[in-house]
Amino acid sequence: MKRVINFSAGPAALPLEVLEQARDEMLDWNNTGCSVMEVSHRSKEFDALHHHAIDLFKELAGLGPEWKVFFTTGGASTQFLMLPMNFLFDGRQADYINTGNWAKAAIKEAKRFGTVTVPANMEREGGAPISVPRQSDLHFNPDAAYVHYTSNNTIEGTEFFYTPDSAGKPLVSDMSSDIFSRPMELGKHSMFYAGAQKNLGPSGVTVVAMRPDFFQLAKEDLPTMMSYRVFDEHCSMFNTPPCFSIYILDLVLRWLKKNGGIEAMGKVNEQKQRELYAAIDGSGGYYSCPVDKASRSWMNIVFTLPTPELDEKFIKDAKAAGIVQVKGYRTVGGIRLSAYNAVGLDKVQTTIQFMDEFRKKNG
Amino acid sequence: MKRVINFSAGPAALPLEVLEQARDEMLDWNNTGCSVMEVSHRSKEFDALHHHAIDLFKELAGLGPEWKVFFTTGGASTQFLMLPMNFLFDGRQADYINTGNWAKAAIKEAKRFGTVTVPANMEREGGAPISVPRQSDLHFNPDAAYVHYTSNNTIEGTEFFYTPDSAGKPLVSDMSSDIFSRPMELGKHSMFYAGAQKNLGPSGVTVVAMRPDFFQLAKEDLPTMMSYRVFDEHCSMFNTPPCFSIYILDLVLRWLKKNGGIEAMGKVNEQKQRELYAAIDGSGGYYSCPVDKASRSWMNIVFTLPTPELDEKFIKDAKAAGIVQVKGYRTVGGIRLSAYNAVGLDKVQTTIQFMDEFRKKNG
Repeated sequence: MKRVINFSAGPAALPLEVLEQARDEMLDWNNTGCSVMEVSHRSKEFDALHHHAIDLFKELAGLGPEWKVFFTTGGASTQFLMLPMNFLFDGRQADYINTGNWAKAAIKEAKRFGTVTVPANMEREGGAPISVPRQSDLHFNPDAAYVHYTSNNTIEGTEFFYTPDSAGKPLVSDMSSDIFSRPMELGKHSMFYAGAQKNLGPSGVTVVAMRPDFFQLAKEDLPTMMSYRVFDEHCSMFNTPPCFSIYILDLVLRWLKKNGGIEAMGKVNEQKQRELYAAIDGSGGYYSCPVDKASRSWMNIVFTLPTPELDEKFIKDAKAAGIVQVKGYRTVGGIRLSAYNAVGLDKVQTTIQFMDEFRKKNG
Repeated sequence: MKRVINFSAGPAALPLEVLEQARDEMLDWNNTGCSVMEVSHRSKEFDALHHHAIDLFKELAGLGPEWKVFFTTGGASTQFLMLPMNFLFDGRQADYINTGNWAKAAIKEAKRFGTVTVPANMEREGGAPISVPRQSDLHFNPDAAYVHYTSNNTIEGTEFFYTPDSAGKPLVSDMSSDIFSRPMELGKHSMFYAGAQKNLGPSGVTVVAMRPDFFQLAKEDLPTMMSYRVFDEHCSMFNTPPCFSIYILDLVLRWLKKNGGIEAMGKVNEQKQRELYAAIDGSGGYYSCPVDKASRSWMNIVFTLPTPELDEKFIKDAKAAGIVQVKGYRTVGGIRLSAYNAVGLDKVQTTIQFMDEFRKKNG
């Protein structure tokens, strides 16, 4: 068995020791004589796991105990729907910053429920957005019920390196692809959410964190599975939760804590991206990153080679060298290296070495 | 490591060889050098798995290739919402047979979207329903857009042993807790659905099967994650699906096929329930099942002991004997043995032996 270097954009690489633990206790979890997949979600063992994951998430995020943390399903795409269903009603308006593909998907859903205004639109002719807006580019709607932004744009390879000052409006962020990758001002948000399958765990569970003052504004009497109030009242267990995904999420959070938490992760990720972008920028134009330097994502490093044929060869040769899932998103093309927390610095350095050798051979 | 006999109502016991395979390929699935949790859902490997699961589901169910099969999240509870959102609009009406807790939960959601009529209501004073209606008890609404029923009532321990003749109306069933437990007339339904965590796999994925003529009636332009049309257009992959849950579902379906499919499963389950109810009825009243004989579930066998204190002692002593998760649902009390497909006849017989010994010791 040879493990590969895995740059998948999500579902993505998981820490090896998390997988090893999941393997070792597959038939007997926590001395129950069952797999964690086989125990009732109402059992005291699973309930303890569930609450451990919530508490550890708050601890790592630096959130006070008053914060709400929900485990939902249906990915960030379902949050694109639940957020406006809960907070954009009775003719309200909301600000959505448009930074690309997933931001637009969130806007599309919100428009079903109320008026969407756009403080900044980074779309441009002839290609994907190549930057996020600066604070001075943001023109907020004074009547917005909240301001939504996508902290990292997985497809475009752009990322916010500041927390937008939303002029006193509740700030909501889709952090699916950079949550817990470095210290961020999470407490300045009224709500943030993330599909787990990038930095937090496997697919199948989405984490939603909410300040209680924002939560209080949620609409009452919504369909049960769409209501944050129901998630709160039942501690995310009105129905059977995605137990195995929550179990792996908990193991990933434990791994994160053991390895120094978000601050330590941020230091490693800073070095990973610095070395990767240096390899791209130092390639004499062989590798080319379209993204503005100030907006270059630490998590999703996108670049192209001199021709689409060389892109293809790069993907093929990388795979032969044990470096996989490096293809860019289908609408953007090129190469994308998604270097989430579980992709260690050593793996990034091996990849940079491969990139240098590929360039020399195919220059 | 000692595996227990697990009667959990869901998440429930899984076949041992499914767990062993999941364990053995945890670090390297399908020669990818990754866990199945770490590969992109757009990869050819995962795509093949996804389609294999869909095709095998249809094969085992005896459905033609024209049927739609979707993998959704949020459990049957989210289907309680999606079904009326997609099919109960513009002032339409629908029939919902009320057989207990989960049927009522489905009715509650449907009422948000249209008029719900009830062809039979099995609620009664002083306790949970103890039977499902007979065909002759069903009074259908001639204007109903569809008829919904719950084929097995997990909490009440009742089950339909006939397919309701819905007078030509599309028939929809929540089969979460008896799907694939025995041959049923699945093809007589326009739609059936099941949370996987009982007979099909772990929690986190829900299977929805739909005839194309019914599908054609689904509302257009619904919120993305609520639209069966979107699930169809994107083959359940508009967003990242719950990959690991689908993987285990596929392994369970393979196990089912290898062991003779639904027909063989039905024979084993018939014997399991026959021996269990015989032990209850032959206990001279020590064990007492409240359910009418014609409606007694094969999957969820509910009974009580002479006193609540003896119920408690039974639960405790069973656990000491390695027989776990036998407590009845919190609103009903007593004992519940959920003997899904993965609980073999030998485990049921060991349990019957325990019941006999317990009665002799505590009679």
